[in-house]
Amino acid sequence: MHVVGRRGFLIGSFAAGSVLLGKTGRLLAQTAPASAGPADPALIEDLVAANRILVEQGVLDGYGHVSVRHDRDPSHYLMSRSIAPELVTVGDIMEYDLDSNPVDARGRGSYLERFIHGEIYKVRPDVKAVVHTHSPSVIPFGVTGVPLRPLYHMSAFLWMGVPVFDIRVASGEMTDMLVRTPALGRALAQSLGPRAVVLMRGHGNVIVGVSLPQVVFRSVYTEMNARLQAQAMALSSNVSYLDPEEAKKAEASVAGTLERPWALWKRKVTTK
Amino acid sequence: MHVVGRRGFLIGSFAAGSVLLGKTGRLLAQTAPASAGPADPALIEDLVAANRILVEQGVLDGYGHVSVRHDRDPSHYLMSRSIAPELVTVGDIMEYDLDSNPVDARGRGSYLERFIHGEIYKVRPDVKAVVHTHSPSVIPFGVTGVPLRPLYHMSAFLWMGVPVFDIRVASGEMTDMLVRTPALGRALAQSLGPRAVVLMRGHGNVIVGVSLPQVVFRSVYTEMNARLQAQAMALSSNVSYLDPEEAKKAEASVAGTLERPWALWKRKVTTK
Amino acid sequence: MHVVGRRGFLIGSFAAGSVLLGKTGRLLAQTAPASAGPADPALIEDLVAANRILVEQGVLDGYGHVSVRHDRDPSHYLMSRSIAPELVTVGDIMEYDLDSNPVDARGRGSYLERFIHGEIYKVRPDVKAVVHTHSPSVIPFGVTGVPLRPLYHMSAFLWMGVPVFDIRVASGEMTDMLVRTPALGRALAQSLGPRAVVLMRGHGNVIVGVSLPQVVFRSVYTEMNARLQAQAMALSSNVSYLDPEEAKKAEASVAGTLERPWALWKRKVTTK
Amino acid sequence: MHVVGRRGFLIGSFAAGSVLLGKTGRLLAQTAPASAGPADPALIEDLVAANRILVEQGVLDGYGHVSVRHDRDPSHYLMSRSIAPELVTVGDIMEYDLDSNPVDARGRGSYLERFIHGEIYKVRPDVKAVVHTHSPSVIPFGVTGVPLRPLYHMSAFLWMGVPVFDIRVASGEMTDMLVRTPALGRALAQSLGPRAVVLMRGHGNVIVGVSLPQVVFRSVYTEMNARLQAQAMALSSNVSYLDPEEAKKAEASVAGTLERPWALWKRKVTTK
Repeated sequence: MHVVGRRGFLIGSFAAGSVLLGKTGRLLAQTAPASAGPADPALIEDLVAANRILVEQGVLDGYGHVSVRHDRDPSHYLMSRSIAPELVTVGDIMEYDLDSNPVDARGRGSYLERFIHGEIYKVRPDVKAVVHTHSPSVIPFGVTGVPLRPLYHMSAFLWMGVPVFDIRVASGEMTDMLVRTPALGRALAQSLGPRAVVLMRGHGNVIVGVSLPQVVFRSVYTEMNARLQAQAMALSSNVSYLDPEEAKKAEASVAGTLERPWALWKRKVTTK
Repeated sequence: MHVVGRRGFLIGSFAAGSVLLGKTGRLLAQTAPASAGPADPALIEDLVAANRILVEQGVLDGYGHVSVRHDRDPSHYLMSRSIAPELVTVGDIMEYDLDSNPVDARGRGSYLERFIHGEIYKVRPDVKAVVHTHSPSVIPFGVTGVPLRPLYHMSAFLWMGVPVFDIRVASGEMTDMLVRTPALGRALAQSLGPRAVVLMRGHGNVIVGVSLPQVVFRSVYTEMNARLQAQAMALSSNVSYLDPEEAKKAEASVAGTLERPWALWKRKVTTK
Repeated sequence: MHVVGRRGFLIGSFAAGSVLLGKTGRLLAQTAPASAGPADPALIEDLVAANRILVEQGVLDGYGHVSVRHDRDPSHYLMSRSIAPELVTVGDIMEYDLDSNPVDARGRGSYLERFIHGEIYKVRPDVKAVVHTHSPSVIPFGVTGVPLRPLYHMSAFLWMGVPVFDIRVASGEMTDMLVRTPALGRALAQSLGPRAVVLMRGHGNVIVGVSLPQVVFRSVYTEMNARLQAQAMALSSNVSYLDPEEAKKAEASVAGTLERPWALWKRKVTTK
Repeated sequence: MHVVGRRGFLIGSFAAGSVLLGKTGRLLAQTAPASAGPADPALIEDLVAANRILVEQGVLDGYGHVSVRHDRDPSHYLMSRSIAPELVTVGDIMEYDLDSNPVDARGRGSYLERFIHGEIYKVRPDVKAVVHTHSPSVIPFGVTGVPLRPLYHMSAFLWMGVPVFDIRVASGEMTDMLVRTPALGRALAQSLGPRAVVLMRGHGNVIVGVSLPQVVFRSVYTEMNARLQAQAMALSSNVSYLDPEEAKKAEASVAGTLERPWALWKRKVTTK
């Protein structure tokens, strides 16, 4: 965990079982943030399902993570410990504050890039769920400057545009490409702005939504739109994208149908 | 359901359990159309299988729908309630009149775009089955103006050409891209004309046939033709398509073999 | 079956249970060719496996067929009745003479295009097994005139070149694209010549080999080579293919390893 | 096995059960190198898993091989007998010296190209595991001269560049494309140099690593990078690759997370 601003000095980012060096130089057990209390078990189940669905749908592989805002406290969020998303179970779900400090690590490791989640929740009160992926078809858009645009109604949520976050520009130096500090998380959240999706150059993307079903839907159809847009651009230099007005209307209509794929996807990962 | 022309005033489109506002302003239980009687159970089984086959074959995902004309009454058709096609079972099949009013909703929701089906059945007496998809490889053809053409004998049924329905032109305004009214359904049916397939710009396609095996076959090989045509066009600017005369003959010959893939596909989805 | 040249008059091509009109006008039971006797059960098992492997490997779908020369009589061959290859079992295997007359149809239908097999066996004594496919990645090569060439050692067997059979040229007229007569089968065999593979414009391809393991191997790696060659051509206009001398040597070496994938493939389809 | 330099004359390369012709002309039982003793059973289990993971991930098909340096003796390595990687079990693992002589063949055949492994282990003491593949998306890069470059942080290990080994240049003549001699293995190791990956023109690639989890990770993301790079190049002629400094840092960071996909992958192949 990261403790800058909490105790006034930085001792780095720890995965788990962290300790702090006190003024006297003695090791102190770290004070974790207080829990917001147990989250709704149905929400946790959905969070587990979201991880597995995104693997099943080809968006995540052995990497990537999904979080959801705590239902009892908007200043906390829930996310798996640092394991492959396909392996996530209820017991792996941890609670974080918006500085991305784990509430109760109990020896469980945290994703290095958890600041993506915390920093977005800070500045986007409308966002209840966040996904970070290496979504394959999306990667080429992040490294070519070709804008990802909504090709069909299923990806209408891309209508506000899809910016590309370049970590080299944000940090002003060569990095290891990982959003491993609060400052980088803030910069990424700023690139995202009010939009649904932001690409990360040479890395992947981040998708946000008002719920787990919505953020999963958006993750799946961002990948699909990228694949189909590349195919369309190969067919012709003259591709018709959705008009923003069409896209806004389509987004609203499609939003009313999210339960349909969600019910299917959830069943597929829970009966396996 | 949609009641324009039935009671002379429009109160909108309801999914299920609709009520009407009577002259006195009191809520009245809605009068549903009379049933054509129970459909052939084998036809219903085939309709369930068709939904699942099209998922198995990569044509449908969590969206899309398949209908079949009622075997006892050509002015009625059968289609699942509004759920993901992979989850459709016999109990989900509903009966509709050609205005796409459900006969016996019993609380079951209807697909918003059911008018695609009803309006095509009205003007194409030869059509006994209709599929609406977001068939992935087909989407790029709908947004580029590149005509989909039959590349090999399996997709010879495309020989009459594949028009693109643009809902913005048809409606004269920006829509949510959905064929959610009888008028839009009629416009789509008009674009389809006497053909087998019509693309929908920024949305998907509609395929028709004389039977469920045929419409499923056509849906599968429309997707396949789109994929292979894109590959051929990437290889060379000089692609040989089937001559219309070849295509007509091939279509007739292939029609005699539909039972072969149908038997396979049906077995794959029923033994799973 | 087709009886021209056998009884001096043509009564068409029948799938099964055929009858002949005798001189007196009475229906006569048709005289089938005599059987070469029971084939080696291990060969029949391999033929069943070959059908299923080619589906598993993405070469065949609901269509296509595989044959093997009879082990007791080189003037006979074995092939499934007309069903989807994935469903073929031992009981579906039929015996044909080289005119592609079934020896013992017992009501079982024959593939319309069985003449592909019989006519190749006639002119290629070295060939012991034949496959006909609609191998997806191969189709674009058959309609663009872009020559399929060996990209890597696994497809070295393509070194003699891969001609394209155009049925319109061969027949001198518009056809239904099917090799449904002995004459068309002969023309196709002539296009194939001494080679391993021939493409069929707007249709698919035919692969031959000295054994079922070899013809299956060649079918799989013809599909793979087509896919990779298209990718290489998209990357660069300057693709290095195998030199014919390299290819000849590689083909010989790889031939010594066929048992490796065959053992794997056979196990995958028999333990499912 | 290959006996040049051991007994002073070459009698060729034998798969198993080899015999030598003694001075008297009598057949002598061959003297195999002494064993380094039993390897760590956990290492052998990982080696079996690595074979199966690489098939599951689409890197290997019926061909290709994986080896690991012996944990008790750096001058020996372990690799399966000559079978399809998907079928490898503990009992198939054989021990080799760095001349690629099997220690205890017991009738088990060796991969013809085992010299790839032995010769790399000789000159790269840092390397503990080697993979040889026909990784599909990589093949086109090996035949076009288009350099494979790291597109995203997962494939940062490509930062030193990916040379192409041309066996025709190395041997000075037309070969069967196989690295079937120690000399060709040495030439390949020289092309590889200090890097992580070397492509083989018209054949495949070789990947090295400090452990089985790392070499498997690198094999998977070399394939993935090739696929995504081809897509990016199709989208735009202006692709941003990782800066070498970014890549070095990313490689180091990602190296700390290898356990995550490895745990997933291993579980997938052992619970099947």
